Amino acid sequence: MITEISLIEIAKTTRQAAQKSAILSTKAKNEAIEAVAQALEKTTPKIITANQLDCRIAETDGIAKPLYNRLKMDENKLKGAIAGLRNVATLPDPVGTVQIHRELDTGLTLKRITCPLGVVGVVFEARPDAVIQISALAIKSGNGVILKGGKEAINSCQELVTAIRHGLSKTSVNPDTVQLLTTREETMELLKLDEYIDLIIPRGSNSFVKFVQENTQIPVLGHAEGICHIYVDKFADIPKAVKITTDAKTQYPAACNAAETLLVHTDIATKFLPEILPKLEKSQVELRGDTATKHILPSIKVATDTDWATEYSDLILSIKIVNSLEEAIAHINTYGSRHTDAIITEDSKTAEIFLAQIDAAGVFHNCSTRFSDGFRYGFGAEVGISTQKMPPRGPVGLEGLVTYKYQIFGDGHIAATYSGENAKLFTHRDLC
Amino acid sequence: MITEISLIEIAKTTRQAAQKSAILSTKAKNEAIEAVAQALEKTTPKIITANQLDCRIAETDGIAKPLYNRLKMDENKLKGAIAGLRNVATLPDPVGTVQIHRELDTGLTLKRITCPLGVVGVVFEARPDAVIQISALAIKSGNGVILKGGKEAINSCQELVTAIRHGLSKTSVNPDTVQLLTTREETMELLKLDEYIDLIIPRGSNSFVKFVQENTQIPVLGHAEGICHIYVDKFADIPKAVKITTDAKTQYPAACNAAETLLVHTDIATKFLPEILPKLEKSQVELRGDTATKHILPSIKVATDTDWATEYSDLILSIKIVNSLEEAIAHINTYGSRHTDAIITEDSKTAEIFLAQIDAAGVFHNCSTRFSDGFRYGFGAEVGISTQKMPPRGPVGLEGLVTYKYQIFGDGHIAATYSGENAKLFTHRDLC
Repeated sequence: MITEISLIEIAKTTRQAAQKSAILSTKAKNEAIEAVAQALEKTTPKIITANQLDCRIAETDGIAKPLYNRLKMDENKLKGAIAGLRNVATLPDPVGTVQIHRELDTGLTLKRITCPLGVVGVVFEARPDAVIQISALAIKSGNGVILKGGKEAINSCQELVTAIRHGLSKTSVNPDTVQLLTTREETMELLKLDEYIDLIIPRGSNSFVKFVQENTQIPVLGHAEGICHIYVDKFADIPKAVKITTDAKTQYPAACNAAETLLVHTDIATKFLPEILPKLEKSQVELRGDTATKHILPSIKVATDTDWATEYSDLILSIKIVNSLEEAIAHINTYGSRHTDAIITEDSKTAEIFLAQIDAAGVFHNCSTRFSDGFRYGFGAEVGISTQKMPPRGPVGLEGLVTYKYQIFGDGHIAATYSGENAKLFTHRDLC
Repeated sequence: MITEISLIEIAKTTRQAAQKSAILSTKAKNEAIEAVAQALEKTTPKIITANQLDCRIAETDGIAKPLYNRLKMDENKLKGAIAGLRNVATLPDPVGTVQIHRELDTGLTLKRITCPLGVVGVVFEARPDAVIQISALAIKSGNGVILKGGKEAINSCQELVTAIRHGLSKTSVNPDTVQLLTTREETMELLKLDEYIDLIIPRGSNSFVKFVQENTQIPVLGHAEGICHIYVDKFADIPKAVKITTDAKTQYPAACNAAETLLVHTDIATKFLPEILPKLEKSQVELRGDTATKHILPSIKVATDTDWATEYSDLILSIKIVNSLEEAIAHINTYGSRHTDAIITEDSKTAEIFLAQIDAAGVFHNCSTRFSDGFRYGFGAEVGISTQKMPPRGPVGLEGLVTYKYQIFGDGHIAATYSGENAKLFTHRDLC
């Protein structure tokens, strides 16, 4: 109970501090980011020492190697994170963009303008460098941020947040816009604060993201799974199909935008599958096929229904032969995770139907699913990738940390003028 | 259990039918809307008869008068609804808008393009004409719609949906894109189908909307409350403040964008309050003031803390005197419902701070809160008004029924080209 009350207090403080960020100029926010960068540089030895302590404890606790690698922050990694922070200062300010500018009547003007969300809650595992990146994005977008790192990174996170707040103390951005929670209980409490937190960003494993999604009423920016498909159509160019499938599966199999299932049109299967088999085998990809695939490639393993719904995140690829474009679309819309799916075809009409009817954030024609990424899209930063249906969807840049409001500027205008028998008409003239 | 299964089947059927709507031309969708209009015209006598039956049963059940008025649909009301339906055909198509068009590299192009949400669930009380409006909006935006009306309107809704589906049967839009549920149990089941329904739109009383919001994981487009404020600043022009406050309170007090609380800066209170008192009293507005207000207007009632958090939807106005702009902002951000709040001031700097720091979908300067409305904004249609933080926020037109997807068009492009030591750089050149 004490935790809950004090957490609400922290959330309120953050919200009040962030409220003032909504009117800061881009210059003021960029100066604050630079001050944070300098504070982090100055505190580097202390941060490294704290991280070494976290690493020693983690080793004693027998932490898994990949988690340990994400936890460990040497001077180079910290330098990289500070460079990333300074890069956020160079990005366009997402606040203050006028999306609609319309004269409603003489002297009565409507504007729809982007504004900060308010307070963003970020819950992450290991990776203390996430603190730096997220804080920079929050400052740039005029938001407050409440950070909750894993207990394995507690000393690192505390040093980082102390440095960030110290850096902010000499700027127009109130240090209270960046807060750190340290106990596990606080995570559950944080997820309940839908009155005070406007968005939750989980950073961690699929099961971790899923847990967050299922335990909060606050909008969540993230994705639990990436079950991406490549559909090789009967009109596919086989060399392109081989090259793209190999890239989508092998270039970085742990990524959420790597392909997990290959669908092949029956008319091209006997030509295509024997061509791709040696390429994938050369890259040590384990193949699992349905009955029809096994007829063509008898040496591979059998795929079961579970395979269609599995994100391997590894060098495994399931293969299914389909009789039509419609069957491919139905399979993807049933088993996909609405992340990214690609079609390989030389027939533009077929591609058009695929791109329109596949229900996913990314629908690609003749290229690798691996392009589904905020940096590759040119967003400069990636806040997360969302597989929800409503915007923001797909890779989300700074834009995902803002909303909009409608402003109307009048000069004593009242609604009665535009109602009743002698109602005046609105002009509704767009000004931009 | 049988209900649940069959409802999932209905939802799947709707989704599959709607999938095909995603590629329809604007012309094809407009022709479908016209076919629906003609079918409704043809079936008018049957619809009126069904509605008369609903009305008789409702009278026997002792239905409340306002609900009865919303339920009753004579020929004129039906004609009006059909005219509204035809108007939807004239609105711009919300699908296919290119929001981002960017060259990533030679021959590799990214597009962000608007697309239908998929399936929208609409749950409403009484008002059978909602069936017509919502169906038109769904057809125009390429969505499927599952309608659930109140049991009091069941015969009317059944006749309407039969006519709509009959109209669609001769068009490119599959009749299965419009479905009607008829039993109360189905509402709860519908709210659980987050895998099949992409958006819920509740139409009814505040408590009804609140119930829906609290009982579903599906995004909800709507607002439970409209606690709107007018803040009369110390730099206010008093005649404007009187005119605007009177309009915001009395022009249509039952509307969600009517003002419920008046905040007055202490420096102007003794001049302003005695001027507005007779105007509001003339309109039979009951005033409830805090202690400071009572000093100036001793005849009015006392306001308690409950008043600040109440949407009267009636000719009642609570009044509070504040000592500063900051106090006004804090009060509104505490008690407001993030709907619409207005400041009356001649000082542009003060207005700027108010508009930036008030956390609401509508923030107005020197005009009535009553302008917060999709038609007044020039949207042509209003799907709902959302007080949630994330977009779509405020009055939402057809835009609220679409999302977007990212399309990439390549020619065999793979991610490996842009990684590693000899990584090629992206061009990231905007094409529109």
